Amino acid sequence: MTKTRCFVTTFLKATLRTLRKKVLVGCLLTLIFGAAVLHHWISNTSSVVNVQQRLDSSMEKLRHSGAQHLDNVSYNLKQATARNGCVCEGEKRGVNMPFADLLFPVVSAEDLKLAFEASKLQGVQERRKAEFQNFRKRAQSAADVLIVAEANSPLQYPTQGVEVRPKTSIVIPGLGLKHKSRSLYLVILSASMGTFSISNVVDKVQVTGNGQMQMNISSRLLPALNRQLGFIMYTNTIFHPNTADIVHYSTDGFQAAFTVKIRHEVPPKLYDPGPGDEYNISALVTIATKTFLRYDKLQDLIESIRQFYPTISIIIADDSEHPKPVTGPYIEHYIMPFRKGWFAGRNLAISQVTTKYVLWADDDFIFTDKTRLEKMVKILESTTLDLVGGAVREVTGYTATYRHTISTEDGGEEGDCLHMRQGFHHVIEGFPNCVVADAVINFFMARTEKIRQVGFDPRLARVGHLEFFVDGLGTMHVGSCDDVIVSHASKIKGMLPFGQSKTDQAYSKFRYPAPSNLQNSLFYFKNHFKCKTSNS
Amino acid sequence: MTKTRCFVTTFLKATLRTLRKKVLVGCLLTLIFGAAVLHHWISNTSSVVNVQQRLDSSMEKLRHSGAQHLDNVSYNLKQATARNGCVCEGEKRGVNMPFADLLFPVVSAEDLKLAFEASKLQGVQERRKAEFQNFRKRAQSAADVLIVAEANSPLQYPTQGVEVRPKTSIVIPGLGLKHKSRSLYLVILSASMGTFSISNVVDKVQVTGNGQMQMNISSRLLPALNRQLGFIMYTNTIFHPNTADIVHYSTDGFQAAFTVKIRHEVPPKLYDPGPGDEYNISALVTIATKTFLRYDKLQDLIESIRQFYPTISIIIADDSEHPKPVTGPYIEHYIMPFRKGWFAGRNLAISQVTTKYVLWADDDFIFTDKTRLEKMVKILESTTLDLVGGAVREVTGYTATYRHTISTEDGGEEGDCLHMRQGFHHVIEGFPNCVVADAVINFFMARTEKIRQVGFDPRLARVGHLEFFVDGLGTMHVGSCDDVIVSHASKIKGMLPFGQSKTDQAYSKFRYPAPSNLQNSLFYFKNHFKCKTSNS
Repeated sequence: MTKTRCFVTTFLKATLRTLRKKVLVGCLLTLIFGAAVLHHWISNTSSVVNVQQRLDSSMEKLRHSGAQHLDNVSYNLKQATARNGCVCEGEKRGVNMPFADLLFPVVSAEDLKLAFEASKLQGVQERRKAEFQNFRKRAQSAADVLIVAEANSPLQYPTQGVEVRPKTSIVIPGLGLKHKSRSLYLVILSASMGTFSISNVVDKVQVTGNGQMQMNISSRLLPALNRQLGFIMYTNTIFHPNTADIVHYSTDGFQAAFTVKIRHEVPPKLYDPGPGDEYNISALVTIATKTFLRYDKLQDLIESIRQFYPTISIIIADDSEHPKPVTGPYIEHYIMPFRKGWFAGRNLAISQVTTKYVLWADDDFIFTDKTRLEKMVKILESTTLDLVGGAVREVTGYTATYRHTISTEDGGEEGDCLHMRQGFHHVIEGFPNCVVADAVINFFMARTEKIRQVGFDPRLARVGHLEFFVDGLGTMHVGSCDDVIVSHASKIKGMLPFGQSKTDQAYSKFRYPAPSNLQNSLFYFKNHFKCKTSNS
Repeated sequence: MTKTRCFVTTFLKATLRTLRKKVLVGCLLTLIFGAAVLHHWISNTSSVVNVQQRLDSSMEKLRHSGAQHLDNVSYNLKQATARNGCVCEGEKRGVNMPFADLLFPVVSAEDLKLAFEASKLQGVQERRKAEFQNFRKRAQSAADVLIVAEANSPLQYPTQGVEVRPKTSIVIPGLGLKHKSRSLYLVILSASMGTFSISNVVDKVQVTGNGQMQMNISSRLLPALNRQLGFIMYTNTIFHPNTADIVHYSTDGFQAAFTVKIRHEVPPKLYDPGPGDEYNISALVTIATKTFLRYDKLQDLIESIRQFYPTISIIIADDSEHPKPVTGPYIEHYIMPFRKGWFAGRNLAISQVTTKYVLWADDDFIFTDKTRLEKMVKILESTTLDLVGGAVREVTGYTATYRHTISTEDGGEEGDCLHMRQGFHHVIEGFPNCVVADAVINFFMARTEKIRQVGFDPRLARVGHLEFFVDGLGTMHVGSCDDVIVSHASKIKGMLPFGQSKTDQAYSKFRYPAPSNLQNSLFYFKNHFKCKTSNS
């Protein structure tokens, strides 16, 4: 501003000296023009928008028009299911035969609100309901609303697949009108988050609202109208990084609606596997573990890894009270506050990985010649799996894969039901030792980007395992191969009082405290479940 | 197996003793029956599936049928744009007027592949192409394919909004047939990832393929057929945690297709804000920071925070060479390997947060009475924003919000173009000091679950800022409020050689090394961009 004033003063002095009226007028006009440009520029970039309001009214309009199509069929499926809702009960044993317990483990059910003290429950429920409603409002999108295509409609239009990056334009594909003979053909397009325009003008077609949120296109000649409909551009004008607009398309007596997704293209997060034909395990995989007081076991793990993978990086999260140094090539040791916790340590470890894959190992595992990480890399490279578990072999020879399936069932306003069952979905073609499941044992390799997207909730301080897989539902494609085996350092000895070393004893004291309601309280509040059933 | 054998032996002995033929026969039948049940059970749960193959062929079929609807319009929009593709060039200054540099900063363009040595580039490009193709294959879904609704079709069907949880069933809403008079009405439904069945039987309607992947429904009475079409159930039989099936719906001379989304319901990750009417900042917010050698500045930050928020948790990630203890109530200090890095430290800090929101602050910030975190909480609680930046005030009084918009432009097989511009999208209604943008300054509050979903890539060891926001495109809704101000500890003094303290000098030595190509090489490989343009 100071510079501008100085400029003006100098100019005025010069003009007074020469008394050139033309120059004075020219200067004034320049200033007025500049101010107008500036004002226009500022006001354009300072438009005030309530995006949520627009989206809400757009979806409301759609729900009303959608309801007309559906006579005698309840169109709000979620409401229908909610009225029925899932019931929180275990299963009775169907077949009473020998070895039923082995073949058909009993399903138990837990009412999750019982994790809270009765006196606090009401407050918890009120806050839970408020948080959930806020979450749902943020998560909803016009792209999920039910739309039904009318029969015998002369309108042709795209029902899926139309996407635009924010504040950009696309030609809408597939628009058409296939009316019978009429004297005048007219279609109307309208939207809430963008405008329509013509990318090519076609003769004998009249367009009103070019560049507006509603555009009318008419012509006496149907072929001309259809040709024009091939050049309709939609431009998103109201910014949102990830939403959908609903386009209403209508002609006399008929209506249609379709979604235009408005979204920033999500950039991929790729990793360079490095040159070479073979899998370079050290370039592709980092081993992550968490330790607490068990430095002896940790050293055994590291030494066993080094026999097979001498240069693989090992990340160690450590929340021991008096941390000891853990050093060596390709070892990264992270010190945490004392007892920060199990999932906090897991989340820390994975947060530091710079390779495409991360292998989770507990600090009391031992690598053997059966611990072939190449097999895990192979299945992750060749399928859509995001995480593949292996098998953990106890001293007794018993080998576990801990395969589970998890499903959720709509339970209405009170929350859904969470079902966890031993087992898996199906075998993976081409990998006869591998299956698809929803949860696996605590020895697995995962895509770093995916496992970080899900994360290990640091609120789980002492115990937790399936919670990670519950958080991963709908995000991670989980598998399990029983031919990649790691050994578990002896647990039997450690479980006998006289068999425990001093560190084992200290570990047990912290690791196995009195049971708490923390896990169920998180399922109830955090994940909004009302019930958990399980047969393991 | 051992128990079964023992059981059989005992039984056989008993029968031999009594020579009851009936019992012997009964036993044999039980065994055969049991084996049959067991075999059936095992084979059902061990079905071998190549899910990807099914999805691929389903989408292929759709592309062929979709192509028929579109005469004269190129239906593969992405291909069309790719042929044109974005061009990597800066902008010339449009208006040549005084103060143009201030008002219209010049846009520069960078060809990102130049970040690599010429000798290594070819290998990089080959691996980049392979990784990107794999990524695209994993990311594609039938729900994104272009589908066009035929005009004048007697078929009525849902075009959007049909979803089913894996391995469960739903009644398909909105199916109908509105033919003219015919002697026989017939419709065919087919799918790839599930089967159809009748939930209620309607008289005078013939159904074949009940429980199969293709079902034919016919009747001489149109009202009866339509009534039956209200009771068609789709059951997902081939498990996938997040995909879509395409249902083909046809009658004589007409075809339609629509998507059924198959997805585990993604559980919410809610936080209990705790009782009370006011915002309990300590219960809702954790402050996260990273420090390196600047313990004096860090202490200043902590003391300034404590003046206003005495019980708020502060998480400190520290990768100094000789870490000093940082202690105090509600302080969590994490020790990292020396020089692990800037984004690694940021990712570590946010990985430990157990509150709904996290506030990022640099270790050389100072809280003042203008640093009202309540304002940030308010906007995050009331809008769909996931992250809101504040303003950083230098000693000079200059206050920066560093607002940027980011957009990407399709660039074809070589990669997209990344455009970063100073500025914002629009003002937020109800919050006159706040705007929507795509990137903000390094002082912000964010939803913990969202910021962890994006993450800070630990591959960015020394410098990085906008990379986080680029990774967040399409995921985070970003805002900026200029009325929440934090002060920046003096930088001017620190920039003069004689004004630096010893720690400042050590810090500068590590923090500002010779420029590297790391950032551009990551934009090129990791995010698959070919060009970056910027005007800041």
